[in-house]
Amino acid sequence: MSTPLFVTPLWLDLTAVGIGAIQGAMFAGRMKDRRIDLLGVALIGIVVGLGGGLLRDLLINQLPAAMASNWYLPVATGAALLGMALQRLFSRLNPLIIGLDAVTIGLFGAIGVTKALAYGVPEVPAAFVGIISAVGGSILRDMMLNLPIALMHVGSLYAVAAGVGSALLVILATLRVPITIAGISCVILTAVIRLLSVRFGWSLPEQRAIGSWPRWRRG
Amino acid sequence: MSTPLFVTPLWLDLTAVGIGAIQGAMFAGRMKDRRIDLLGVALIGIVVGLGGGLLRDLLINQLPAAMASNWYLPVATGAALLGMALQRLFSRLNPLIIGLDAVTIGLFGAIGVTKALAYGVPEVPAAFVGIISAVGGSILRDMMLNLPIALMHVGSLYAVAAGVGSALLVILATLRVPITIAGISCVILTAVIRLLSVRFGWSLPEQRAIGSWPRWRRG
Amino acid sequence: MSTPLFVTPLWLDLTAVGIGAIQGAMFAGRMKDRRIDLLGVALIGIVVGLGGGLLRDLLINQLPAAMASNWYLPVATGAALLGMALQRLFSRLNPLIIGLDAVTIGLFGAIGVTKALAYGVPEVPAAFVGIISAVGGSILRDMMLNLPIALMHVGSLYAVAAGVGSALLVILATLRVPITIAGISCVILTAVIRLLSVRFGWSLPEQRAIGSWPRWRRG
Repeated sequence: MSTPLFVTPLWLDLTAVGIGAIQGAMFAGRMKDRRIDLLGVALIGIVVGLGGGLLRDLLINQLPAAMASNWYLPVATGAALLGMALQRLFSRLNPLIIGLDAVTIGLFGAIGVTKALAYGVPEVPAAFVGIISAVGGSILRDMMLNLPIALMHVGSLYAVAAGVGSALLVILATLRVPITIAGISCVILTAVIRLLSVRFGWSLPEQRAIGSWPRWRRG
Repeated sequence: MSTPLFVTPLWLDLTAVGIGAIQGAMFAGRMKDRRIDLLGVALIGIVVGLGGGLLRDLLINQLPAAMASNWYLPVATGAALLGMALQRLFSRLNPLIIGLDAVTIGLFGAIGVTKALAYGVPEVPAAFVGIISAVGGSILRDMMLNLPIALMHVGSLYAVAAGVGSALLVILATLRVPITIAGISCVILTAVIRLLSVRFGWSLPEQRAIGSWPRWRRG
Repeated sequence: MSTPLFVTPLWLDLTAVGIGAIQGAMFAGRMKDRRIDLLGVALIGIVVGLGGGLLRDLLINQLPAAMASNWYLPVATGAALLGMALQRLFSRLNPLIIGLDAVTIGLFGAIGVTKALAYGVPEVPAAFVGIISAVGGSILRDMMLNLPIALMHVGSLYAVAAGVGSALLVILATLRVPITIAGISCVILTAVIRLLSVRFGWSLPEQRAIGSWPRWRRG
């Protein structure tokens, strides 16, 4: 399948990276008990902002985008240090950041899916690449900070939003819907699910073996 | 060296992936103190079932097998959710699963070694690729669950079994033994060592500096 | 940019790998409370000695150097087991090892930068590849041992030394300074910064939001 790439302008891609890096720095800033230094903050920013795209390109065996341009690393580093310095300001803007982040997840997912399709990856793994593009930064962040990986635990639907959006994009691409429409649909659906799940506290059920399901229990 | 690939039929490869994913889910199921949700279980299943093959293909710089087919990801996810739901059943089948797992390690090792040799990797790193193919899933599982990596600690011979089997395969391939015979020998040797080590509690000695060896101590 | 590779003779590269592996084994040896076995020590040695080069080649999407030669893995494994056995001897040689390590960081950085430039990676990500080549082994070590990543926390300037050296090399290469001179300058500058920071206890400041900077505080 020779799906055309859902091309995003560089400034949009870099904005998404910057938003990720700011969030990474704010996350690191909440860990007062660890003595994280300036380099640690920059590293977390780079990991959160660029990690998803890096895992995406490792999975499809291509040169990582951040290695092909001079822009990505300075933007991620700068945004992380800004996020650290202006932590109070950004904390007050939290609702705005959650909104921007929801769009960012969708954007990373859409770029991931179409890049995978464009390089000949079949539909199912292409959707998987979309999910990893969207959530990979937060997985790497938790692994580097030596924390349990947030998205494996009961919480609001981060990866699910990315997964539903990515699946929609794969289906639309298979139906030969123009890639720009398909990509924008993916971004909107992902962002809406994410925001609704934050608003209404939706979550996936905790793991459960059949024998322990309440309806199977006998008095 | 143009070693032919030890070709395994897709159903066998997928069975091995499924057994790995079921074990991953059962492992996650024992962690009652963490609130792992359905997605977390699916993720652990994907990591344990597909992680070894993923690391193998990253090491030899090829497109991961799971990214080249629609089958791997649904099988790993489905097996993980099945393993979660039928945990009690599978726990009772534990001896069977340990047996299947021993064969699975051997199979992953054999596929890893021959794939590396086929892509021109020299003998020593090819055997290393076999070991990582066999144990990579469990390494990634422990890193994602934020646990000490099981195989670095004193315990039954998991990686050693894979290492001996992989070394045998490399030697046989160098001696131009037909690849099917070499591959099956690797699987059998790996599985036998693994099962004997479980049965008799074999383990590697703990790390020790020479100065602290008992025979060097003076009254 | 077709920068020529800063070619290091194989024996020098392997010496650097061996020094890394010995340090990894000594690090593992200090963790008496965990029951790390011989395989665990070998694995840590491989990770510390070869991890930087592995991450470097993953980032620039090339076959890892350790996968293209029979020498790297045995040297790393042998050095790690030697480091474990002769722990007392090496502990007494600690100043020598810190000195050799400082040169090793510089060497890994110089190889990383020039390899990235030679494969067409632009200047900024090329310097980043140099830093990761130098410090990647210690990052992977901490992730595998389930420890907080040392270089993210306040401490002596490990990554900064690699970063300054890598930046110098990128600048010299852009100015068309012969690559051998540029590479040796990078190694010397990195080693000197690292050693001075150990000697004088230099460190980066801890992360700090602007609102909490002392000069901004009011009575």
